[in-house]
Amino acid sequence: MVKNIAILGASGYTGAELVRLIATHPDMQIVGLSGERKAGMTMAEVFPHLAHLDLPVLQKIEEMDFSNVDLAFCALPHATSQEVIAALPGDLKVVDLSADFRLRDPAAYEKWYGKPHTQPELQKIAVYGLTEFYRDQIREARLVAGTGCNAATGQYALRPLIAAGAIDLDDIIIDLKAGVSGAGRSLKENLLHAELSGGTMPYSAGGKHRHLGEFDQEFSAIAGRPVEVMFTPHLMPFNRGILATVYVQGDAKQVHETLAKAYKDEPFLHVLPFGQVASTRSIGGSNFVHIGVVGDRRPGRTIVFAALDNLCKGSSGQAMQNANLMLGLDETTGLMFAPVFP
Amino acid sequence: MVKNIAILGASGYTGAELVRLIATHPDMQIVGLSGERKAGMTMAEVFPHLAHLDLPVLQKIEEMDFSNVDLAFCALPHATSQEVIAALPGDLKVVDLSADFRLRDPAAYEKWYGKPHTQPELQKIAVYGLTEFYRDQIREARLVAGTGCNAATGQYALRPLIAAGAIDLDDIIIDLKAGVSGAGRSLKENLLHAELSGGTMPYSAGGKHRHLGEFDQEFSAIAGRPVEVMFTPHLMPFNRGILATVYVQGDAKQVHETLAKAYKDEPFLHVLPFGQVASTRSIGGSNFVHIGVVGDRRPGRTIVFAALDNLCKGSSGQAMQNANLMLGLDETTGLMFAPVFP
Amino acid sequence: MVKNIAILGASGYTGAELVRLIATHPDMQIVGLSGERKAGMTMAEVFPHLAHLDLPVLQKIEEMDFSNVDLAFCALPHATSQEVIAALPGDLKVVDLSADFRLRDPAAYEKWYGKPHTQPELQKIAVYGLTEFYRDQIREARLVAGTGCNAATGQYALRPLIAAGAIDLDDIIIDLKAGVSGAGRSLKENLLHAELSGGTMPYSAGGKHRHLGEFDQEFSAIAGRPVEVMFTPHLMPFNRGILATVYVQGDAKQVHETLAKAYKDEPFLHVLPFGQVASTRSIGGSNFVHIGVVGDRRPGRTIVFAALDNLCKGSSGQAMQNANLMLGLDETTGLMFAPVFP
Amino acid sequence: MVKNIAILGASGYTGAELVRLIATHPDMQIVGLSGERKAGMTMAEVFPHLAHLDLPVLQKIEEMDFSNVDLAFCALPHATSQEVIAALPGDLKVVDLSADFRLRDPAAYEKWYGKPHTQPELQKIAVYGLTEFYRDQIREARLVAGTGCNAATGQYALRPLIAAGAIDLDDIIIDLKAGVSGAGRSLKENLLHAELSGGTMPYSAGGKHRHLGEFDQEFSAIAGRPVEVMFTPHLMPFNRGILATVYVQGDAKQVHETLAKAYKDEPFLHVLPFGQVASTRSIGGSNFVHIGVVGDRRPGRTIVFAALDNLCKGSSGQAMQNANLMLGLDETTGLMFAPVFP
Repeated sequence: MVKNIAILGASGYTGAELVRLIATHPDMQIVGLSGERKAGMTMAEVFPHLAHLDLPVLQKIEEMDFSNVDLAFCALPHATSQEVIAALPGDLKVVDLSADFRLRDPAAYEKWYGKPHTQPELQKIAVYGLTEFYRDQIREARLVAGTGCNAATGQYALRPLIAAGAIDLDDIIIDLKAGVSGAGRSLKENLLHAELSGGTMPYSAGGKHRHLGEFDQEFSAIAGRPVEVMFTPHLMPFNRGILATVYVQGDAKQVHETLAKAYKDEPFLHVLPFGQVASTRSIGGSNFVHIGVVGDRRPGRTIVFAALDNLCKGSSGQAMQNANLMLGLDETTGLMFAPVFP
Repeated sequence: MVKNIAILGASGYTGAELVRLIATHPDMQIVGLSGERKAGMTMAEVFPHLAHLDLPVLQKIEEMDFSNVDLAFCALPHATSQEVIAALPGDLKVVDLSADFRLRDPAAYEKWYGKPHTQPELQKIAVYGLTEFYRDQIREARLVAGTGCNAATGQYALRPLIAAGAIDLDDIIIDLKAGVSGAGRSLKENLLHAELSGGTMPYSAGGKHRHLGEFDQEFSAIAGRPVEVMFTPHLMPFNRGILATVYVQGDAKQVHETLAKAYKDEPFLHVLPFGQVASTRSIGGSNFVHIGVVGDRRPGRTIVFAALDNLCKGSSGQAMQNANLMLGLDETTGLMFAPVFP
Repeated sequence: MVKNIAILGASGYTGAELVRLIATHPDMQIVGLSGERKAGMTMAEVFPHLAHLDLPVLQKIEEMDFSNVDLAFCALPHATSQEVIAALPGDLKVVDLSADFRLRDPAAYEKWYGKPHTQPELQKIAVYGLTEFYRDQIREARLVAGTGCNAATGQYALRPLIAAGAIDLDDIIIDLKAGVSGAGRSLKENLLHAELSGGTMPYSAGGKHRHLGEFDQEFSAIAGRPVEVMFTPHLMPFNRGILATVYVQGDAKQVHETLAKAYKDEPFLHVLPFGQVASTRSIGGSNFVHIGVVGDRRPGRTIVFAALDNLCKGSSGQAMQNANLMLGLDETTGLMFAPVFP
Repeated sequence: MVKNIAILGASGYTGAELVRLIATHPDMQIVGLSGERKAGMTMAEVFPHLAHLDLPVLQKIEEMDFSNVDLAFCALPHATSQEVIAALPGDLKVVDLSADFRLRDPAAYEKWYGKPHTQPELQKIAVYGLTEFYRDQIREARLVAGTGCNAATGQYALRPLIAAGAIDLDDIIIDLKAGVSGAGRSLKENLLHAELSGGTMPYSAGGKHRHLGEFDQEFSAIAGRPVEVMFTPHLMPFNRGILATVYVQGDAKQVHETLAKAYKDEPFLHVLPFGQVASTRSIGGSNFVHIGVVGDRRPGRTIVFAALDNLCKGSSGQAMQNANLMLGLDETTGLMFAPVFP
C-alpha cells in the first residue's frame, strides 16, 4: 500500500531532493508540502525542475492535515525544527533533516548550537540516522535524526577502523572538500557564483565546525573513550558532492580489509580495490558512497578517501533510506538509481 | 518479459548514459557491451560511477553473440556505425545514435559528412528518431536514427510553428548554447577544462554545423518548400544541457498557443506559461524538454527558448524512448525520473 | 604629476577593479575610498585580494575631503549616484559608473529606471563614456557617464555598421552571453553558485533590459531615425566576460571591412581576420575587445561577435580610459596589460 | 637598458604566462619564441589572448639566433629541457621551468623521473629557484631551476617552521588542492571539462607525486636530517591556483609568529592575521602568496594554509622574479600587479 508522505520545509534544496526521490518511489506519494514564506506557491514556481510533477501547493505547517500522513520529512532549519516536531501528532513518524536531534547530550547541543535544546524528551527518543550503523533502532523509531552530510562522510571512512582498533585514535585528520549545496539556498556573499567559483578556501577551520559534535559523540562511543579528530572543511566550486581525505596511522592493507569486510553486504557502500581513489564525480546524484584506501610511502600511514553526494546520501537519500525502514519497506526502495555522469 | 539489450560503443558518454537508464528500467537488461579499444575492461574501470552495477565485460563487436539480443543500441562514431550495422543480423532491432542514418538523401549525407554513404539500402529504411513526430513509424521500424542533440532542441521549438504557418520561414535564427558533453569523450584541446571553463565562444558559425542537414531536411519537408535557418552554436562551460534561443517573426501569443496545443499530451515536452523562459538547469539529468515563449517589445517578433539535456533527451533518453516503442513497451518506461537540481 | 583619485562605492566589484587598475597606474594614486555600510573597514577586509596594497580605510562619503582630489570615480548604485554627485564640489571631475547619466533624455531615464531623474542639469552636461566615439567630448568633460557593459559590447559590434549604412536597421538581433559579475556583489538567489553554475538561462528577455535605453539612444542618433534592436541577455556560469552574438542583414565582407577600417587605429579594439570568432577567454582581465565577423551560408546575412571583459573594458577599464583623457594623460596609460589565460 | 629575452617552448601555458608578464615589463623585450610543433605560427594563432602584442613568429630552437639574447626562459617538458639547455651557448643565462634541474642528486632525479640525468655537470651548477630562500645564489647563477608549483606552495608554508624547529618533523601532512592548468595544455582524458568540472578527486596519492623529491631534498637540507612529508594533491575544477592545507604539530601562535617574522620584508609573501584562512581567489593572476595560520581545538596542533597562483608565482612569475635578479634588476620589476577578482 502506498504510503502518504508530508515534507515540511519543501522549498529548500533537501526538500526538493526529497521530492525528486519520491517522484520515482513505487511505495510513496506526497500528500502535503510546507513552505512558510512561499506558502501558496506551487513547487513549479519554487523549483522549475519539478514542473512535470503533480504536487500539492505549498502550505503553512499549521494548515496541514496530518491525519492521513504516514511519515513526515522535516527539512527545516535547526532550532525551528525541534519546535515544529514537538507540535506534530505524537504518533507521526518523523525523519528530521536538521541538526536538532543529532546530538544525544543536551550539553553538547548547547555547546555546538549556542542555545539550550527546548525538547530534551524528544532528544532522548531520537535515533541517529546513519543507516548502516543504526538500522535496527531506526526500524523501530518514531523520530530519526538525519546526520550532518560532512559527518556522514567522515564516519563512513572511520567507524569500522575505530571499532576494530585498526588506527591510532589520537591522530585522525579529516580534510574535507564540500560542494556548495551543503550550505543550502541561503543568501550569503560567500555563496555567490562570483565569489566562490574558480577557486577554493577553507571555512570553520580549527575545530569550529558543528559537525565535530557528531564526530565526537559517535567516535567516542565506538572507542569507549574520548576521540577528537581534526576536521578542516573546504568550500568547493561545485554544487554536489563531498570528498573526505582522511589521514590515519594504521596499516594500509589492514585498513582496506577492515572497511571492505565491514561494508561487503552494504548496498550503497562501495569499497574500491586497494590503491584506488574516490571521486565525487562517480557518485553525483546518487545514494552511493565510494571509499578508497591508499598507503603512504611510509609504512603505517594511510589515507582513506570517502565520497558521497551531500544532498542525496548525505541528507535526503539517507532520509529516504531511513523512512523505508521505518515504514517496513525494503531499505533500498527507490534509491538504486545510478549516478549522473558526466 | 525482460528484453535483452546490447550496447555497441559503450565506452563513450552516450553509452554510459544508456547504461544509467537501463539500470532502473523495469523491462530491460544488458546482455552485451562492446568497446573496441577498451575490450576486456569492466565498465567500472571505464566509468567508475557505474561500479555498483553487475555488467558484462566490454567485448569486441565481432565477439558478441546477438542470438538472444532483442535490441541493440549503437553508440559508435558516424561512418563506423553504418558498417557495423550492416554486419548485424538482419532482423535485429537497432537504435543508432550516430549521424549515419539521420539524413534520408545520400547527397545530403555526402555534403555534410564529406563522404558517400556506403549503406544506401539501410539509409532508406531508417526512421528519423524524433519520437514525438515519428512515433508510428518508429513503432514499426527495424532501424531508428537518433537525431542530433542540437537538431532535436531546435526542432522542438520550431516544428509546430512551421507546420501551422505561424512564422516567417525566411527569417529563423537559432542561437544555441551547448554543454560540452555533446562533443563526447574526445581528446581535443578546446575541450580541456583549462581552455573551456570560465568563458564561452561560438563554433561552426556561419552555416557550417552538420546538424543543419537535419534542420534543412525536416523543416523543408514540413513546409513543403526549402527552409534554411541560421544556426550558431556556442560551446558552454558546463557539461550537460542545451538551450536554443530561437528568433522568429510571428505573433508571440499565437506562437505560444501553437506550441502549447501541439505538446499538450506529450509526457516529456513541457511548454511553460507565456512569458516564462527556459533554463538548462531545470531539465538536467532528465528526459524532459522545457519550452518558453516571450514576445519582443516590437509586435510580430518572438523568442522561443527550448532546453533539454543533450545526453538524455538529446541522445540516450531519446534512444530509450524509441526502443520502448520498438519493443512494444510504454514509451515512458524508465524515463519519468526527475531532473537533478541543484 | 601624480593625480589624486577618490573612489566612491569602493566595496563593490567595479570599485575593486578600479583599485586593481590604479595599483599599477604610473600617474594615479588613491587618496580616498568610500563604502557606506563598510565604513571603517580596510580594503583588505572587504577584498582580501587587495591586501598587499597600502590603501586608505573606507569612509562615509560625507567624511571625505575632496579638496586635493583630482578626479572621483563614482561606483554607486543608480539613483544614489545622482544624489551623491550633485553634492560633490562643482569643479570636481567625475567618472560615474552607474546608469544615472547614460541617457540624455529625462523621459527615457524615467521609462527605463522607473522614476524621474532628480538632477536634470547634471544630466545635460554628462558625456556618454564610450571612449572611442566620444573622445573629444570626454577630454573636456566634467562628468562622464560610464556605459552599460552589455550596451558597450553591442555598440562595438554595430556602431560603424549603422553609421556606414552597411546593414538593415530593422532587423538587428543581439543575443548576449553575460558573465555573472555584471550583476554585482548583490545577494540574489539566482546569483548563487548552486543556482547558476552548470547551466544557463536568459533574463530580461523580450525588450525589457535597461541597456536597451542606451541602444535606442545611440543607434537612433547615429542613424538619424529610430532604431530598435532585439536584445536577449543570458546569464552565464562564469565570472567575467560578455560575448555578443549579433545577427545582421548585410554583406559579410563589407561588414568586416567596415569594422576593420573603423577600428584600425584603436588601441583596444581588435578586429579578427574575416571568418574568425571571438571568445571571452581571449580578453578576460583586460581592456581589449575582440570582434569577429562570419558570413552565413545565405548571402546577405552576417554574424558579428564581440567579446569584452564586463568589469574591465565594460566598466572600470573604460572609466580609467576616460579618466586618463579627462586628466590630460595618454588614454592607454595603465591599461595595456595582457588578458589572463587560462 | 632593455634586456633581450627568448622563450623556448612558448606554446604552453607557462610560455604564454611569460609573454603576459613581459608585455608590461619595463626592462624586457621578447626577441625570440620557439615552439617545435607550432613553428611558423604566430602567437595570436596559438594564443588569441595575446593577439594585441607585436611578437616574433614561433621558430624551431635550432633556427634561433641567441647572439643578442640576454636571458632565455626554457618552458619545455622535462628530459627535453636538459638536452636543449646543454646545446645553448655556454654563457647564456637560463631560467628553466621544467623539472630537470630541481633535484641536485642524480640518484634522486632518476628515482622520481624514471631515467638517468644526461647532464650531471649542468645539474651541479643549477640553483634551486625558490627566490626568497636562494636569492643570493640566483643573483650569480647562470642556470636557475624553477620549482614545482606544488613544491613551492608547500615550502612557503613550512620552510621557516622547519628551520626554527617549531614543528614535529615526523608528522607533516600537505593536503593540496591544485588548479588544472598545472597539468599544462596536454590532451588527457582526466583534464577534459566533462570529466573534471563539477567535482574533485585526488591523484598521485600515497607518496607518488614527483614534487616529493623537492620536499625531501629541501626539508631534509634545512633540518639536517631526513624529513619525509605526506603529500596528497587533489585535482580541482578551476584553472589557476593552489591551496596547500598543511597539518603540523606545533604551537599555533608560535607557528604564526615564525612565519610572520620570516616573511615580514618579503614583497610577495603575505602572512594573514592569526586565525585567518587563505583563498586561491585572493591571489589569482598575481605573484602574491597568502599564508594563514589557524590553531586546532587541541593545543599543539596547527593548520597552515598557503595559496598561490600556480602559473604565476608557482612558475612563470617565479621565473621572472629570478630573471630580474640574474639580470641585475629589482626583483619585483613588472610583478607588482594586483590579483584579478572576481
